[in-house]
Amino acid sequence: MLEIAQSAERIEKYLKEINLPQEPANLYEPLRYFLALGGKRLRPVSTILSGSLFNATEEELLPAAIAIELFHNFTLLHDDIMDEAPLRRGKETVHQKWNTNIAILSGDVLFVRAYQELLKCKPKHLPELLQLFNKTAIEVCEGQQMDMDFETRDIVSIEEYIEMIRLKTSVLLGCAMAMGGIVGGADEEQKQFLYDIGMNLGIAFQIQDDILDLYGNAEKVGKQVGGDVMANKKTFLSIYARILANEQQLAKLDELQEYYNALAKVETTKQIFSDLGIEKLASEAMSNYFLKAETSLENLSKTCNVNKLRYFVGVLKNRTY
Amino acid sequence: MLEIAQSAERIEKYLKEINLPQEPANLYEPLRYFLALGGKRLRPVSTILSGSLFNATEEELLPAAIAIELFHNFTLLHDDIMDEAPLRRGKETVHQKWNTNIAILSGDVLFVRAYQELLKCKPKHLPELLQLFNKTAIEVCEGQQMDMDFETRDIVSIEEYIEMIRLKTSVLLGCAMAMGGIVGGADEEQKQFLYDIGMNLGIAFQIQDDILDLYGNAEKVGKQVGGDVMANKKTFLSIYARILANEQQLAKLDELQEYYNALAKVETTKQIFSDLGIEKLASEAMSNYFLKAETSLENLSKTCNVNKLRYFVGVLKNRTY
Repeated sequence: MLEIAQSAERIEKYLKEINLPQEPANLYEPLRYFLALGGKRLRPVSTILSGSLFNATEEELLPAAIAIELFHNFTLLHDDIMDEAPLRRGKETVHQKWNTNIAILSGDVLFVRAYQELLKCKPKHLPELLQLFNKTAIEVCEGQQMDMDFETRDIVSIEEYIEMIRLKTSVLLGCAMAMGGIVGGADEEQKQFLYDIGMNLGIAFQIQDDILDLYGNAEKVGKQVGGDVMANKKTFLSIYARILANEQQLAKLDELQEYYNALAKVETTKQIFSDLGIEKLASEAMSNYFLKAETSLENLSKTCNVNKLRYFVGVLKNRTY
Repeated sequence: MLEIAQSAERIEKYLKEINLPQEPANLYEPLRYFLALGGKRLRPVSTILSGSLFNATEEELLPAAIAIELFHNFTLLHDDIMDEAPLRRGKETVHQKWNTNIAILSGDVLFVRAYQELLKCKPKHLPELLQLFNKTAIEVCEGQQMDMDFETRDIVSIEEYIEMIRLKTSVLLGCAMAMGGIVGGADEEQKQFLYDIGMNLGIAFQIQDDILDLYGNAEKVGKQVGGDVMANKKTFLSIYARILANEQQLAKLDELQEYYNALAKVETTKQIFSDLGIEKLASEAMSNYFLKAETSLENLSKTCNVNKLRYFVGVLKNRTY
C-alpha cells in the first residue's frame, strides 16, 4: 500500500529535519548518528494509520508518532549499553563509537525530546496522551528489567516470557496505535480496540522474530541464522524446548550452551527443536496472537473503515525475514 | 522559619509514601533506597514557597514540587554512574550497590515518574509546566555533558564554567520557582522574576559550594576539607587560579595535580590560592549572583509579599557548610 510507504518516508524526513543543536557536540552528534541509522519506523507508521481511520491528518498525527519513535530510539540506545551490543543495524552502537557516559546522557536527552514532540499535540489531548505514554514508558522499563533478570535465571516459564515481551516491546505498539486514536478523536471502545490490536500484534511480532532468527530467510535477514542460539539467548523457542525436553535432551541443551562451533551449535539445537516440534508450537502461539489482533480489528471494523490497518496487519503477518 | 521546615517535612513524607511496585524488585528496590537517602529538598521547597506567594495551596503545589525532586534524583542517579561516584550522602550509590545497568534503568523509570507527578497538576497548567520542565531537563543534560567535556580540557574559561553550572544545576532551581508561579497563577513578569531569582541563586549556591569545599566549616561539612582539590576537580576557584597564576605558580599547580599526600596537596594549593586572592574573588562573584537574585526579588516584591522567599534566600546566603 502506497500510503504506508509514504508515511514511513514522511517520518524519515521529519526525523532528518529535527533541529538538534550543534553544541555540546558530544551530546548531539551521537543522536544525529543514531537517528540516521534508520529502521522500519513501524511504530510511528501505526500511529498515523490508526489516526487516519478517524480522519486525523498526518500533520496532526506526526508529533505523537515522532514522540513514539524517539522514545523507542531512546530505549534502544540504553538497551544497547545494558546488552553490551557492539552493533545496531550493522553500525557501531553509540556506547561503542563514543562511550557509555555519552550513550547514557544522549539517551536521556532523546527521552526529553520525545516529550517535547508530544507537547506539540493539541492541549486538549495532552493529559490523555501523556497518561498513556508515561504508563507505557514505565512498562517498557519493567520489561527490560525482567529481560535482564531472566539472563541469570535457569528456569523461565512461557507465561513469564510472554509477559516480558508484552512489556518490553508490545505495549509500545499498543500505545502507538491508541495514540493515533486519541488524536483522531476515537471513542473509548475504539481506543481500546486499537490498543489491543497493537499489543497483540507486538507479541506476535516478537515470537515471529524468535522464529525467524532460526528459521527465517537467511539471505534476506542479512545476518547469520541462529544468532539467538549462538548467544544462548532465552527465546520463546528455547524456553519451550526446555519445558518439553526429556532428561537426555535437557542435558544436551545444557551442553550446547558451551559449544564453540557455531554451525554445529545451531544445527544440533535445530535437531532437538525439530524432535520436540518447537517450530510448530511457536508458530501456533504466534498465530494465536495474530488472531487476537485480528479479532480486535474486526470489532473495530464495526464502527469504522479499517482497510488500511487490515493491510498493515497482513504485511506484518506475512514477513519472512 | 517554621514554614520551610514544615514544607520540607511534607515533601519527605510524600516521597516516602510514593507507591512504587514490588516487582521487578531490581528496578524498584534501588529507587526506594535512593529516595530514602534524603537531602535538603531545596528545589521542591522553593516551588512551594514561590507558589504560596500567590496563595496556591501546598496541595496544589506538591505535584510540581515532587516532579522537580524526582527529576533531580534521576539526574543524580545517572550522574553518579558517569562520575563513577562510590558514595552519595555517605551511602553506596546505586550502580555501586547493584550495578550500572540497574542504575541506568531505575534512573529512566524515575524520570518517567517525574512526568507522572507533573500530570497531577491542573490540565490548564500542563502545557506551560511541561514546556518549562522539558527545556530545563535538556539544559541540565547539556550542562552535565559540558562538565564531562571540561574534564579532558586543559583550559576552561570562567564564562564557560559559569555557563556549565548555570545549565547543570541553576536552571533547575529557576524552573522549580517558576513552576510555583505557574501553579499559583503568577503573571508573565512575576514568573520571569521567580525564574531569575532561582537561577541566580543556583549559580551563587554552586560557587558557594566550591568555596565551602576548601574554606568551609570542616566539622559541619562532615567530609574532608578540599575534596575538590584532592580530586583535581575543575571549580570556580581552580579555574580562576589558573587564569591569574604566573608561570611559576602554574607549574606548581600542574605539579600539585600529581601529589599523593592529600594534606600537602590541599595546603599548598591553599597557599597559592591565597597568594592570588582567589577566595576573595570567588566570594565577590558569588555575592554578585546573590545580588542579582535579590534584585529580582525586590522587583517581585512590588507586586506581592515576598517575605517568605526573602527569608529563604537569606538562609541559603548565610550557610557556612
